[in-house]
Amino acid sequence: MKLSNPTAAVLIIGDEILSGRTADTNLNTLAKFLAGRGIELKEARVVGDSRADIIKAVNRLRFGYDFLFTTGGIGPTHDDITAQCVAEAFGVELPYHPEALAVLEKRYGDEFNDARRKMARIPQGATLIANPVTDAPGFQIGNVFVMAGVPKIMQGMLKDIEDRLPRGELVVSRSITIKGVGEGVIAAPLAEAARRRPNVSIGSYPHLSASGSHIQVVIRGTDEAEVEEAEAELRALFESETLKPLEVLAG
Amino acid sequence: MKLSNPTAAVLIIGDEILSGRTADTNLNTLAKFLAGRGIELKEARVVGDSRADIIKAVNRLRFGYDFLFTTGGIGPTHDDITAQCVAEAFGVELPYHPEALAVLEKRYGDEFNDARRKMARIPQGATLIANPVTDAPGFQIGNVFVMAGVPKIMQGMLKDIEDRLPRGELVVSRSITIKGVGEGVIAAPLAEAARRRPNVSIGSYPHLSASGSHIQVVIRGTDEAEVEEAEAELRALFESETLKPLEVLAG
Repeated sequence: MKLSNPTAAVLIIGDEILSGRTADTNLNTLAKFLAGRGIELKEARVVGDSRADIIKAVNRLRFGYDFLFTTGGIGPTHDDITAQCVAEAFGVELPYHPEALAVLEKRYGDEFNDARRKMARIPQGATLIANPVTDAPGFQIGNVFVMAGVPKIMQGMLKDIEDRLPRGELVVSRSITIKGVGEGVIAAPLAEAARRRPNVSIGSYPHLSASGSHIQVVIRGTDEAEVEEAEAELRALFESETLKPLEVLAG
Repeated sequence: MKLSNPTAAVLIIGDEILSGRTADTNLNTLAKFLAGRGIELKEARVVGDSRADIIKAVNRLRFGYDFLFTTGGIGPTHDDITAQCVAEAFGVELPYHPEALAVLEKRYGDEFNDARRKMARIPQGATLIANPVTDAPGFQIGNVFVMAGVPKIMQGMLKDIEDRLPRGELVVSRSITIKGVGEGVIAAPLAEAARRRPNVSIGSYPHLSASGSHIQVVIRGTDEAEVEEAEAELRALFESETLKPLEVLAG
């Protein structure tokens, strides 16, 4: 399946992910968000709170793809270094942003200290991304969208960036769940179907569980009619005598 | 915190992760596994089922870190191309491995077809990684460990590779949970504590929930005594009058 859709990468920033203390959930949220707009997520990376690693990854990914989305490292504490690193990656200053200062001053009033002022330092030339949860903004500079790591805040920020992104062709997907055989039995006919239909992508995903294993066959493509034709063909194939005993379930 | 520990990267392979259909859990499992052996996970990447992307990532990561762990793409279907890509990345052939053939033949007997034989094709020079769940092996070539994507199988394979890995210094961690203030209030004293103790890493992680937000302050380092000293200092600080009203909870 070749797409001419816009491409994107995701960069998850934070020691806590690499140490195993926290299980990231933002990647899956972003993957679904991008899929829903027809933007093709091509790569994701996770790096720690390391200046050199963040700068290198930001530059590789912003030049490699149409858009880069980062999460993490934009809070007030010393381990939050993403804004500074993005400024360095772009070779720009990191001044206080008047609008960010105003938003934060309004929130914190008398308790607006230096650490909180740090959250108003935004790379020169960036525009703010509104944070509907805790006010401290993210920002967009060029093709890079810099967001918070706290899932609820990151999700809130997505609302503000939706309108800044183009829409590509939506990829529709259909899936068939089968039980009673291993992947090795359906592999050859699946491969043949994939060869015959270069415009759709056919994936096979085994799942193991105590109640018995099953396989999900997923058909994806931008032409819904063709995806549904491929689904019907595969369903007929799985239900044919040659592949018995095979239980084909809906969805 | 500078470590002289062995370093590692993780490469998650599969369209289903980037399309958002599946939420990866292997990264967190591997992160904990590596942390438990004193191996420092420095980077993770996710790529799709694309030959060029897999080969490029394998070569970047195997040369960049002491060890590389991959998950996904070693099944019998046409979208499983990891073994082939790793062979290409290393510039070696992909012959049938006698021991892998034997294991699979024993499992499948009369149903040992070409698709299943494909799972016995292992890059020249690699050693097998036992799969205690469904038998089809992973493999190790050089510093690269190639494992299944199905979480239960991946976890099973980790048992076979434990003894092949060195042990580094364990990083111990302590955490303090505080309620009643924002990160901005504790940021300055945290930063000072971090400056004073370059051998420990101090992270601050805000959590939002309907029942009220809290912050976890995590202190990490290889010297348990120093980590505990830092914890005691921070705990005393958080309980001091200057930072009231602040509720410090255990753990």
